[in-house]
Amino acid sequence: MKCSIEEITTLAVRALKRAGASRAMAQATAQALVAAEMEGLTGHGLSRVPLYCQHLREGRADGKAKPKLVKKKGATCLVDANGGLAFLASALAVKEAVKRAQRYGVAFAGVTNSHHFGAAAYHLAPVAQAGLVGLAFTNSPSAINAWGGKKAFFGTNPIAAIFPRHHGGPIVVDLSLTEVVRGKIMIYAREGKSIPLGWAVDKDGNPTTDPKAALTGAAFSFENDSYFEPGNKPRIGHAILALDPGALAGADAYFARLEVMISKMLADEGVRLPGTRRQQAAAKARAEGIDISDALLSELRQLARSKR
Amino acid sequence: MKCSIEEITTLAVRALKRAGASRAMAQATAQALVAAEMEGLTGHGLSRVPLYCQHLREGRADGKAKPKLVKKKGATCLVDANGGLAFLASALAVKEAVKRAQRYGVAFAGVTNSHHFGAAAYHLAPVAQAGLVGLAFTNSPSAINAWGGKKAFFGTNPIAAIFPRHHGGPIVVDLSLTEVVRGKIMIYAREGKSIPLGWAVDKDGNPTTDPKAALTGAAFSFENDSYFEPGNKPRIGHAILALDPGALAGADAYFARLEVMISKMLADEGVRLPGTRRQQAAAKARAEGIDISDALLSELRQLARSKR
Repeated sequence: MKCSIEEITTLAVRALKRAGASRAMAQATAQALVAAEMEGLTGHGLSRVPLYCQHLREGRADGKAKPKLVKKKGATCLVDANGGLAFLASALAVKEAVKRAQRYGVAFAGVTNSHHFGAAAYHLAPVAQAGLVGLAFTNSPSAINAWGGKKAFFGTNPIAAIFPRHHGGPIVVDLSLTEVVRGKIMIYAREGKSIPLGWAVDKDGNPTTDPKAALTGAAFSFENDSYFEPGNKPRIGHAILALDPGALAGADAYFARLEVMISKMLADEGVRLPGTRRQQAAAKARAEGIDISDALLSELRQLARSKR
Repeated sequence: MKCSIEEITTLAVRALKRAGASRAMAQATAQALVAAEMEGLTGHGLSRVPLYCQHLREGRADGKAKPKLVKKKGATCLVDANGGLAFLASALAVKEAVKRAQRYGVAFAGVTNSHHFGAAAYHLAPVAQAGLVGLAFTNSPSAINAWGGKKAFFGTNPIAAIFPRHHGGPIVVDLSLTEVVRGKIMIYAREGKSIPLGWAVDKDGNPTTDPKAALTGAAFSFENDSYFEPGNKPRIGHAILALDPGALAGADAYFARLEVMISKMLADEGVRLPGTRRQQAAAKARAEGIDISDALLSELRQLARSKR
């Protein structure tokens, strides 16, 4: 069903508050999830509201937590999310990173004791608005084996980058290489095809060409993603790096060189700038509203209504 | 032929000086190339000496260039390599980054007007020696098409990371994802096998399963790598990021948590720490010398001798 941005945001805020989130946390979270939904990133969009509500109810995320700046030294600082959802804490880290990068040329803000980061690039919008280049990092529950190992060890650990332009929206790059592989393995499994050797290992750590062995094995334990299972507070960490081009070759040189690069890229037929599709999807959603499945909408309405 | 480290370093220094490098540039360069050779990274090792000598003679690299700190602001600075080989300039950038990170918690040092970066992790050794986490970035001649494009646009742009440990050698990670794909495509081509769709495009920008079309096409123009063809000064850029764990969770917490992670990793049978194989190869080379092919050795000897 087509919903207006306001309508769906209000619904998400209400659901998160009912589950125990403070007004500020509910608003920051709903805004981030709606933004991802608007950009077409449904995996990090409104489908997360029920899961976050469950985590708030189970105490895996603390709805009353207030993020706090617990350490600062020159161009670096550390924010403690105190076990709350990620968005308030990371907004504080971004604010501090921008302030410090403006002063020192570069800044690094860490966030500790946090929760699911959502779409990594979302957090970086204020960095680009301040005319700074931004990078965002986060860890995530174990999904990938280490070099030569059998067990899920590293997370998919997305990285995002943002590059402001002199006019128009920023260049936005989101990297989550293992997500690509995961998506590809899923397509191969659905089509009953073999995957090339080297893409994945099975549950014994042996290389496999069977996409189903790769999907159920220890190396890519997507179905065991601990966000989706009972568990402790995830204590996820994030980091924001902000960089002032003015401190290096200079802002004028940066903006001019970036436009040279962009024109050169666009001169090659078929090239699209990273972030463009998302920005177009968001503009469309702003004008026309968002399509939400009836099932999700009724779940959100129930969460917004009930006190269960 | 087996050569001692001293012997082969002296030979490389002499060859580079004969080609026009200053003593300092020749020494920094030879040291870096010998270190790569010792670690088994032969592609960034002594095989580069003849190419660098050619670039020095052709004026694509300026042997008399002195790197200079041209800009500084707080935690950031910019080094101009002035068209010389990369190693003196990047050593200056690393020194400045370490100094600034110790003061501000994080630092970012850029290098402009430089040349081939070599093995990216090499530059980071002094960062780890100072107890700091380091990242190194560089661009490189065009080899990869942009999103949806047909023409080689981006370079392979390697990234390296170094993480100091309390005892023993640092963890060293070198990422060059396109190199992996390139290597894999070459293996598929050699074995006469198809590559999966999505790995590469042909010279018209269309997805291909033919590894040879992928190799000779514009998207992966390895054989046209401009370092190996006549061309202008490459004006390559590098960047060093140094980060003081003491400014975040604290050095004690960093070292303790890193060891927890390492023990957990090594508890999974078959896991190897990144950097270990290189460190072992280097130790062996230090003790026993390096194997150099007769062809390369005679070329180096000729370059060290002649004034051509």
